[in-house]
Amino acid sequence: MEIFDNFNPKEIFKDQPESKKNYINGTIYNNIKVPMREIKILGNKKKDQEKKLYVYDSSGPYSDEDTNINIKEGLHPLRKEWLLKRKPIHGSTSQISYAKKGIITEEMEFVAIRESQKNEILFEKNLERENRLKSRNKHFTIPEIITPEFVRKEIASGRAIIPSNINHPEVEPMIIGRSFLTKVNANIGNSAIHSSIEGELEKLLWSLRWGADTIMDLSTGKNIKETREWILRNSPIPVGTVPMYQALEKVGGNIEDLNWNVYRDVIIEQAEQGVDYFTVHAGILLPHVQLTKNRMTGIVSRGGAIMAKWCTTHHKENFIYTHFKELCEIMRHYDISFSLGDALRPGSIADANDEAQFAELKTLGELTKIAWNYDVQTMIEGPGHVPLHLIQENMEKQFEYCHEAPFYTLGPLTTDFAPGYDHITSAIGAAVIGWYGCAMLCYVTPKEHLGLPNKDDVKQGLIAYKIAAHASDLAKGHPAARSRDDALSYARYHFHWEDQFHLSLDPETARKHHDESLPEEKNLHTPYCSMCGPRFCSMRISSQIYEDKKI
Amino acid sequence: MEIFDNFNPKEIFKDQPESKKNYINGTIYNNIKVPMREIKILGNKKKDQEKKLYVYDSSGPYSDEDTNINIKEGLHPLRKEWLLKRKPIHGSTSQISYAKKGIITEEMEFVAIRESQKNEILFEKNLERENRLKSRNKHFTIPEIITPEFVRKEIASGRAIIPSNINHPEVEPMIIGRSFLTKVNANIGNSAIHSSIEGELEKLLWSLRWGADTIMDLSTGKNIKETREWILRNSPIPVGTVPMYQALEKVGGNIEDLNWNVYRDVIIEQAEQGVDYFTVHAGILLPHVQLTKNRMTGIVSRGGAIMAKWCTTHHKENFIYTHFKELCEIMRHYDISFSLGDALRPGSIADANDEAQFAELKTLGELTKIAWNYDVQTMIEGPGHVPLHLIQENMEKQFEYCHEAPFYTLGPLTTDFAPGYDHITSAIGAAVIGWYGCAMLCYVTPKEHLGLPNKDDVKQGLIAYKIAAHASDLAKGHPAARSRDDALSYARYHFHWEDQFHLSLDPETARKHHDESLPEEKNLHTPYCSMCGPRFCSMRISSQIYEDKKI
Repeated sequence: MEIFDNFNPKEIFKDQPESKKNYINGTIYNNIKVPMREIKILGNKKKDQEKKLYVYDSSGPYSDEDTNINIKEGLHPLRKEWLLKRKPIHGSTSQISYAKKGIITEEMEFVAIRESQKNEILFEKNLERENRLKSRNKHFTIPEIITPEFVRKEIASGRAIIPSNINHPEVEPMIIGRSFLTKVNANIGNSAIHSSIEGELEKLLWSLRWGADTIMDLSTGKNIKETREWILRNSPIPVGTVPMYQALEKVGGNIEDLNWNVYRDVIIEQAEQGVDYFTVHAGILLPHVQLTKNRMTGIVSRGGAIMAKWCTTHHKENFIYTHFKELCEIMRHYDISFSLGDALRPGSIADANDEAQFAELKTLGELTKIAWNYDVQTMIEGPGHVPLHLIQENMEKQFEYCHEAPFYTLGPLTTDFAPGYDHITSAIGAAVIGWYGCAMLCYVTPKEHLGLPNKDDVKQGLIAYKIAAHASDLAKGHPAARSRDDALSYARYHFHWEDQFHLSLDPETARKHHDESLPEEKNLHTPYCSMCGPRFCSMRISSQIYEDKKI
Repeated sequence: MEIFDNFNPKEIFKDQPESKKNYINGTIYNNIKVPMREIKILGNKKKDQEKKLYVYDSSGPYSDEDTNINIKEGLHPLRKEWLLKRKPIHGSTSQISYAKKGIITEEMEFVAIRESQKNEILFEKNLERENRLKSRNKHFTIPEIITPEFVRKEIASGRAIIPSNINHPEVEPMIIGRSFLTKVNANIGNSAIHSSIEGELEKLLWSLRWGADTIMDLSTGKNIKETREWILRNSPIPVGTVPMYQALEKVGGNIEDLNWNVYRDVIIEQAEQGVDYFTVHAGILLPHVQLTKNRMTGIVSRGGAIMAKWCTTHHKENFIYTHFKELCEIMRHYDISFSLGDALRPGSIADANDEAQFAELKTLGELTKIAWNYDVQTMIEGPGHVPLHLIQENMEKQFEYCHEAPFYTLGPLTTDFAPGYDHITSAIGAAVIGWYGCAMLCYVTPKEHLGLPNKDDVKQGLIAYKIAAHASDLAKGHPAARSRDDALSYARYHFHWEDQFHLSLDPETARKHHDESLPEEKNLHTPYCSMCGPRFCSMRISSQIYEDKKI
């Protein structure tokens, strides 16, 4: 890997001015250090100067100025000491097994602190405002304070997971569940057409820069194992895979030659490396396949199509389904989480919410119960292409059939007619399903349906999804969500242009847009921008009204 | 205007391959020719070759190969003969006055045909699918067939409007109402910082290319009147303005010098030119202003802030409110529609759905009744910044307070934290409120809050909003909406790459994304793309399953 000799990953994280890494220590476990990003608020340089905004930060040590990074050595294994001192309970080391026994782990306290950034100091509490903006969700409410005990209960009940393979000690624990911040997954990985380890590693770093909470390595091309090793050792966020892809490569691409043993070998190999969650297509059964026959777009999940072909060729039941308990035993050992794949998700608006889709979802619900019995953390994958008015039914059926296990959806895309812009068609659906209670959103890039995403596509996809996730957090009333919007709007109204840039999702782009028409330094102190010019700036006029004290 | 000598506006409309303009004649009025775009479906060049998809087309004569365009002369005044033969009813020539009398005008039949493209020939009707996907809106259903009589009823009841000044005969009639396709408005116009007539005219054409249904000229800079004249004479879509901007320029920017007479002069000048709808800030009353005092971002409507300042400076009631009936008489004469402005829309998540906002909305409802009594077509403007869970309340209150008059919202933006990407933060809210019944969505560009949009910003804003509008049309069950998604998904599943590009919202971008990784011509016939490569293409595998006839 000569290419990494002159590679400084920290460069990618440099464009966050007035921003630095900070850590909060645990109280149950004082050896844990929970990372967050601290954004300095400049204000008018008098009264606001001591203010800071803390935001959730999934970028890992890369954005910490005081940490040395060496890609070849990998990240510091922060969980190693926690894991070493643990005594397995009944042979299980999984978070859910501890949670069921009433034990709060380091990981649980870590995520409780991580989810709790309320930034109360920024603004005086305004009761009228808090009441007016409070969430109105039917099925759940998020507590004002997220305690380690609350986390433990959510894990124990299966409503949340902390994906964290015991062989991935580099991971900074994060939680996926409807009562927590909505998370975003970024898919990376090569294909037979495009392949390079350094390219994929760069996409990992790029994903961290733009806020990915987990990453899936969906490589199907060359050097699958080696690529994954580089990713795992350098990833502070959980890594998911679809083991079927490597299994198919192992049998030379011949679907009919697949079998449980080949698949099991791949599972164990990836488990040993440290993969945190596996997408397994265990819920597509032989009788389901014929339900897709009259669909507009058949089966659009890669793993699902492979399994459907295997089942129909051999006329046998899905070998992952028939070996599910054995699979659970392996996964419990490593504390790998299930992401129960939706092989039959709709690939077009026409196929949304059909019989095939919901038949599989029911099976996923049955498998969830089995996984929980084996103390395996579990989430459920969801669609796909769904028009706006059918999204709620997806969430409610998942809630019912899958016993409140976290939902993890791809979009959904709300129209089929905009290839090249499916990050937008799907961000709409993602925001809506997140609000209804979907726990994690799998991003979609502008390249969806057209080709393998490049670096900029990864950025655009993540930006759209961080927006969707944040919109859903505001709507579901997560206590840490609104402070950033408030701080930015305050800066906007007071013409603190620098703060407006620093607090934004993409400071560089916000500044570039502003400077395109008013480039000079002095314009960062003017109470208007080129959109309206000085005479027509509503905020300027509005401020004058209150200053005149005529009201 | 030397610059237009070598200017060929049709160049802008060239990137729509296998696409041509077509017209449908009226049956009540056989002199009307309703435009639409016909996209040829290439398919596998045997069985599909006769298929065509018709789509709604707001681009006007510019996209018609057989029409000569001369920017200096303006467009052909197609409504001139309709208007000439009309006898005003009680001094009124407005669409609502005819509708109330039971008269179907040319404009009404025109929009009925325009909204009725069902493309039934493309796919066999699948009843299970139609039932599964049908709309579930509480407050309204869209009929299977949109007849001229249905249009008339909607206009008569005030639930829809056809903005069409008698002095803008170049306009191709279009309808705004919840039972019709969701429309998109693009704002153009210069500011004191950036100004050029040709620049604004280019933005008009660019807006037409990307699907704007109406345009607002929000110029506040130089040559306001001349710019507007060029825009009106060359615009096949309705043009809206905010007359207050020109009124303020007339009094040298001194808000306190404004008065009814100055405002009235501007109204008449613009009415004579042919402006189709006016945003008037008649609903913000003196007592409302103090309700905004504890807001995060005060008053963020330009016209609203100006009027609030005027009211508080003079301690007098809003002069548009006090002269509203006189204004109605002028507007009825020209058949100009009201867009009753929301001066107190929230400019931040923190201010959403507050007392000030809804107090003004109630006043807008009272004004709606008055406007209807004067036979003036009316729509109501809406917010702004609103978190996802408070959007529905906006639509329901508007529905109730404003007696079902069409709602026309800016976004709403669902978060404040992403300047530079507010086309996305707001497309989410726009799609949702469109689904609930909002009739027209005012686009937001990536430059929102930061500067005046340029050509590419206009395109990005419109793309995001055409997606939002289409997502809402699918969800509210407009009969013309789904055929394009179905045709594109069919092409996708059958690897008809060319059709996939031609049917997409932005053919050039879709093709570019595909070709980035598989550029050769031959790849347009391969049954996979670079995203998954040949072995892992789910659609390819899925097709094989059905071909094998094992299910």
